[in-house]
Amino acid sequence: MIYLDNAATTQPDEEALEYAREFAVNAYYNPSASYRGGFDVSKKLAEWRSALCAEVGGEFELIFTSCGTEADNQAIFGAGRRGNVVTTAGEHAAVERCVTELKNRGVEPRFAPVSRDGSVKTEALLDLVDDRTSLVSVMHVNNETGAINDIAEIARLVKQKNPRCVFHSDGVQAFGKLAGKLSGDIDLYSVSAHKLGGLKGTGGLFKKKSLSLPPYLYGGGQEGGLRSGTENVFGIAAFCHAALARLKARETDLVRVRAVRETLWRSLEGFERISPEEGSPYILTVSAAGLRGEVLVRMLWERGVAAGTGSACSSKHRYSRVLTACGYGKDVLDGVLRLSFSPSTTAEEAAEAARIMNACAREFRERM
Amino acid sequence: MIYLDNAATTQPDEEALEYAREFAVNAYYNPSASYRGGFDVSKKLAEWRSALCAEVGGEFELIFTSCGTEADNQAIFGAGRRGNVVTTAGEHAAVERCVTELKNRGVEPRFAPVSRDGSVKTEALLDLVDDRTSLVSVMHVNNETGAINDIAEIARLVKQKNPRCVFHSDGVQAFGKLAGKLSGDIDLYSVSAHKLGGLKGTGGLFKKKSLSLPPYLYGGGQEGGLRSGTENVFGIAAFCHAALARLKARETDLVRVRAVRETLWRSLEGFERISPEEGSPYILTVSAAGLRGEVLVRMLWERGVAAGTGSACSSKHRYSRVLTACGYGKDVLDGVLRLSFSPSTTAEEAAEAARIMNACAREFRERM
Repeated sequence: MIYLDNAATTQPDEEALEYAREFAVNAYYNPSASYRGGFDVSKKLAEWRSALCAEVGGEFELIFTSCGTEADNQAIFGAGRRGNVVTTAGEHAAVERCVTELKNRGVEPRFAPVSRDGSVKTEALLDLVDDRTSLVSVMHVNNETGAINDIAEIARLVKQKNPRCVFHSDGVQAFGKLAGKLSGDIDLYSVSAHKLGGLKGTGGLFKKKSLSLPPYLYGGGQEGGLRSGTENVFGIAAFCHAALARLKARETDLVRVRAVRETLWRSLEGFERISPEEGSPYILTVSAAGLRGEVLVRMLWERGVAAGTGSACSSKHRYSRVLTACGYGKDVLDGVLRLSFSPSTTAEEAAEAARIMNACAREFRERM
Repeated sequence: MIYLDNAATTQPDEEALEYAREFAVNAYYNPSASYRGGFDVSKKLAEWRSALCAEVGGEFELIFTSCGTEADNQAIFGAGRRGNVVTTAGEHAAVERCVTELKNRGVEPRFAPVSRDGSVKTEALLDLVDDRTSLVSVMHVNNETGAINDIAEIARLVKQKNPRCVFHSDGVQAFGKLAGKLSGDIDLYSVSAHKLGGLKGTGGLFKKKSLSLPPYLYGGGQEGGLRSGTENVFGIAAFCHAALARLKARETDLVRVRAVRETLWRSLEGFERISPEEGSPYILTVSAAGLRGEVLVRMLWERGVAAGTGSACSSKHRYSRVLTACGYGKDVLDGVLRLSFSPSTTAEEAAEAARIMNACAREFRERM
């Protein structure tokens, strides 16, 4: 199987899994227990937390959550409690559904338009920010196109206009992949473990130390009181092991993955490119305009290629909400395929996948 | 190490872990993906879900959550949105903190008193239920004493008084341990994986099919729209594997564990018993009145016994809120130790633990 759906989820890193298994089997104690076994687990959690924080920047602390979606929910419902909340038309459902729900809670949702590649139109976003804006949320890498929003610059401009509003970014497709640390203008940053070799069921919310948030889960007071519930030690161990490896290698990985993406693109025939060249190299979204993407996905699976149709999470709707907002017509929307890579995807796999994609599209066209 | 802190967390069941590992490594696809690999994972999730529902009763469906605490939060904030919410003074922090928080949301919290063993005073609870009660929450097994609340009977009486109110029970210490199915008067029931051989970071909320709840996490629409976020497939696989084994063996386990508990109790010298004889056999709470429980816990650890001081989650407070509500004085509260068992705890371990406890308490008393 040539697995090209790494933006939906990745194969778990077996070394990270083994690390977590060994830890969980030997140090299975409750981190809140008052004997040494418990303290040791709690100390290890603190170590993992600091190691990840060191990678994003010293002003942040990390709340471990059960997924990127939970991190987004906590950020938006926690910081978006007054006036209006500004976000983009390109967001993942985990942000978009929360911001939409705010209307029922007396907060006005505002959506800024996106360009054809899925990145936000910054001027239009800034126009929506005013004195009553409590939160701005702009995703770092668009999960359907790979477009990168320059969140450091956008956050700076937002803070210039309203220094009191909180800036959140959904970093699920960026964390461990793009170079650099988080800018100090960013207050909240959501990440997920299973997009970079960790397990589904683990995520995190980086939070500026100076920002206070209400708890999202009430109870025993874990995660500094912000997220009660016994810590998912197994998932956190695997997450940290996998993420630290990816963070350390990310700059060299970027170069290699970019070459893989371009090999795939150059080998395709008759597909339209949606992903921008300067976007995340981990995502290549194309369209076999006029064909049905879901049918192509199933044909590809039968021939050993796993590819996505936009966001796995929105696969119940025929047309992608985000790509519709980008301005594409039904013809293109119908034929969307998202190929997404991991650092271990090879150029050979990419070329072979392109060959199979070309053959499937040709056959499909002939049958029509 | 004689591990007698199974009510805080259990050692993961290695067979369940291996089952989850194999599944997650081979079927790592996103359950929402639109190719066969994704469908297969999604089908497996449905199978695990039904297998667990079949064990509790056909009228229930199961929302997988990230922990028991999340299940409690979803139940209480989801169903307790008007009038008043009635609960007990014996609840775990995951329920108590939520009900207390309701005050800030315009809902009146009401706490019914508990008896000396930690079980709720049913008449007093019923007195608090009126026409404006939207939710009643009564834990099944008290995590600090092991006392069992007859939730089927309590739910019946509550519904007799107000048929419209929702009945929730925190079943974290009961699930997979006590015999029987859930009564139809119960609407919501919270469970946790890591109390019965699963992993920390997985839980569930059984919900009567006819009851509607608002979503707790907004996003891609997983878990029937009630709990968005990519499913924790690894944790759910381990949970179901471990829980089904425990559910099937629970009646014979009960008899064996009861004998283990009584062996321990009979071998203790100079301890006061807090746990009722007819409570869950998995928990034996005692007090070495006049001694400091935390110090004893550390002495025991040094000699190879892991024991708890009441709830691991409330270990930051000197005196247990729950045992204080039971009416114990400071002398007894200071010396509380909770011994909690798994089906694999042996009578030999129990006798050896008692011998060590007696020796530690004696030494401690001599030093004073």
